[in-house]
Amino acid sequence: MNEFNEVIFDLYGTLVDVHSVARRADELFKGRGIELSRLWRQKQLEYTWLLTLMNRYEPFEIVTQRALTFSLKQLNLSLRDSEREALGNEYMRLEPYPATLESLKVMRAAGLRVSVLSNGSEKSIYAVLTHAGLLEVFDGVHSVERAQRFKPDPAAYRTVVQPSSTSISSMLFISSNSWDATGAGHFGFKTCWINRTQQTFEEMGYSPTMTVDGIAQLAAHLTTRG
Amino acid sequence: MNEFNEVIFDLYGTLVDVHSVARRADELFKGRGIELSRLWRQKQLEYTWLLTLMNRYEPFEIVTQRALTFSLKQLNLSLRDSEREALGNEYMRLEPYPATLESLKVMRAAGLRVSVLSNGSEKSIYAVLTHAGLLEVFDGVHSVERAQRFKPDPAAYRTVVQPSSTSISSMLFISSNSWDATGAGHFGFKTCWINRTQQTFEEMGYSPTMTVDGIAQLAAHLTTRG
Repeated sequence: MNEFNEVIFDLYGTLVDVHSVARRADELFKGRGIELSRLWRQKQLEYTWLLTLMNRYEPFEIVTQRALTFSLKQLNLSLRDSEREALGNEYMRLEPYPATLESLKVMRAAGLRVSVLSNGSEKSIYAVLTHAGLLEVFDGVHSVERAQRFKPDPAAYRTVVQPSSTSISSMLFISSNSWDATGAGHFGFKTCWINRTQQTFEEMGYSPTMTVDGIAQLAAHLTTRG
Repeated sequence: MNEFNEVIFDLYGTLVDVHSVARRADELFKGRGIELSRLWRQKQLEYTWLLTLMNRYEPFEIVTQRALTFSLKQLNLSLRDSEREALGNEYMRLEPYPATLESLKVMRAAGLRVSVLSNGSEKSIYAVLTHAGLLEVFDGVHSVERAQRFKPDPAAYRTVVQPSSTSISSMLFISSNSWDATGAGHFGFKTCWINRTQQTFEEMGYSPTMTVDGIAQLAAHLTTRG
């Protein structure tokens, strides 16, 4: 019998590839797309953390635009406002990782409730999941905007627990971002770290409950033990 | 007449150069010192932010060691425990930037109260200032350890306000870290950003009260207007 009733996925970097934006960025700045994409993502995360610490929550889309503005300046790249906004909106059109839809379907068919908990606003989460063709498999969509705090603030993780009848001990939180898995684990979830590219897990006094190399491995693990 | 009674300095990266550790790191790992030093500093900052968000404060020295452990793993560099600890302790022996002592003396001679507010523990701050030959010029030494929250949490900045009789409007907070100047500004301080190396100021809805290219320029500005 499987110990979990519900699997809760992070979105950005876990189900969809944030570096999908590099292709569009590379069309604008030949040969510098990945450099821009990496700095942009780094700053996007830093701003979610820093703004939450300062009690200055802003919607994820605004933070994403701010991070892009910084990154363009830092790299001495220039764009018209309309082009910058259009590039920012690429975050609504991220590509899912291989095998994502099929693996989610396998888990759902095995009786697991499938949810997402993301830093994105509810509007963004729906846009991203719709574009990626994943929306149909989700039973629950949770945005931190209800808490007005970004992950890993405990209030952000709490948004997924309050309205649900499932006890936290039967929920598995899944993220490719090891700081996010750490935050979720310290909050009280069992966690799964998806480590696709042989990264190093963050050193903040926590180890994930399980580690897999992709979502297909997670699906196999959860459904063959059931 | 000068509008400020007190100047409050950040320590790491503002008065002393965190990349002083690169030299020692380069002796251990030829040609890779600056790479290690940069990742280590980045992770050190990230962990202060993330641990504060998770309500899991740990002393700055522990966070510094954690960040070093991560960075060595990530870069596939290995050290014995005793060597790693010794390298971590290099953070107690950071070099002051040029003209720091003289500039602080000029400000103090002009009647300004000179303080430091740092993420470091009180013990570390004293060790760093003593090694750098700066301790004698400080009227106040403030560590965030009293708040058990790292900057830019408002509680960290509040540690410098409570015990002082000076009103916040007559205090100038000075940092080379633009996220720190942003946090201090959102908290309510007037701020000065020391931008030594033509960096880009963070895009979090705040601009510093003034920007200088070094501490000597700040000293000149504050004392010639007085």
